[in-house]
Amino acid sequence: MTPEQSMTATALQSWALSISRAEKTFSGLSDEALRRPVAPGKNRLVYLYGHLIAVHDAMLPLLGIGERLHPELDAPFLKEADSAAADVPSAATLKALWDEVHGALQAGFDRFSPTDWTQRHTAMSDADFATNPLRNRLAVLLSRTGHIAYHLGQCALV
Amino acid sequence: MTPEQSMTATALQSWALSISRAEKTFSGLSDEALRRPVAPGKNRLVYLYGHLIAVHDAMLPLLGIGERLHPELDAPFLKEADSAAADVPSAATLKALWDEVHGALQAGFDRFSPTDWTQRHTAMSDADFATNPLRNRLAVLLSRTGHIAYHLGQCALV
Repeated sequence: MTPEQSMTATALQSWALSISRAEKTFSGLSDEALRRPVAPGKNRLVYLYGHLIAVHDAMLPLLGIGERLHPELDAPFLKEADSAAADVPSAATLKALWDEVHGALQAGFDRFSPTDWTQRHTAMSDADFATNPLRNRLAVLLSRTGHIAYHLGQCALV
Repeated sequence: MTPEQSMTATALQSWALSISRAEKTFSGLSDEALRRPVAPGKNRLVYLYGHLIAVHDAMLPLLGIGERLHPELDAPFLKEADSAAADVPSAATLKALWDEVHGALQAGFDRFSPTDWTQRHTAMSDADFATNPLRNRLAVLLSRTGHIAYHLGQCALV
């Protein structure tokens, strides 16, 4: 294994571990259990579940894998704060969305070579990337992996 | 920049960003502010502060950088759960410990070549590493970067 193959596989393993932890946290919870807040007055589990799906869906164009699958998730789970009054999808619907988005991401990841991970993400112009070569696809993957951990730490308080 | 240089720098940037966020979270807080729990009945900020220092101190031998600097932190911040009754170091002491441990880590990181990051960490035998080459130093770095995010997510609830 070359160093860049090893590094890519290590980063993808870290992502997969975080995804697996998130699935253990959310899937299997009832609609009622998902309505619990992580702490009094804070986001509900269902909001964080939808939030992660929305953020990961946005990785598809950002990494150059494809179009958004579910941009309609942005309003309730990104742009708006959680509200106990908000209508939310069922646990079964969220599970289906989760599986669809992560399946599409994984299919894209499977096509990337190690060098592809060091290429710019689509929010960077070529000129900007020339001055900041660390704004690459790998940086997006690591950032989103940390973002999962950030919210799982909150979910662990329930 | 070679792919492995780019990947190493990207991972180190991700670590540095998490460390910087943790410093913004903890440093500057008074002894009293550090005694607030992240949620009712949960860990206090001071416990998470010391916990991160202890976990990062343990990275020194794990990555083959050097001996532990402060193994005495393990009892109060790793082995034992937080307790409001527990005596804790002052904010100033924790800040000094934080700076010392992260200075030592950074000095070690500065000496590593990209290939060094793909070598086994010291909790792996050569034989085990041969069958699982992803148990490398980079995996430790990514895991600990995620661990910071996990607890910062909790701190953000205060």
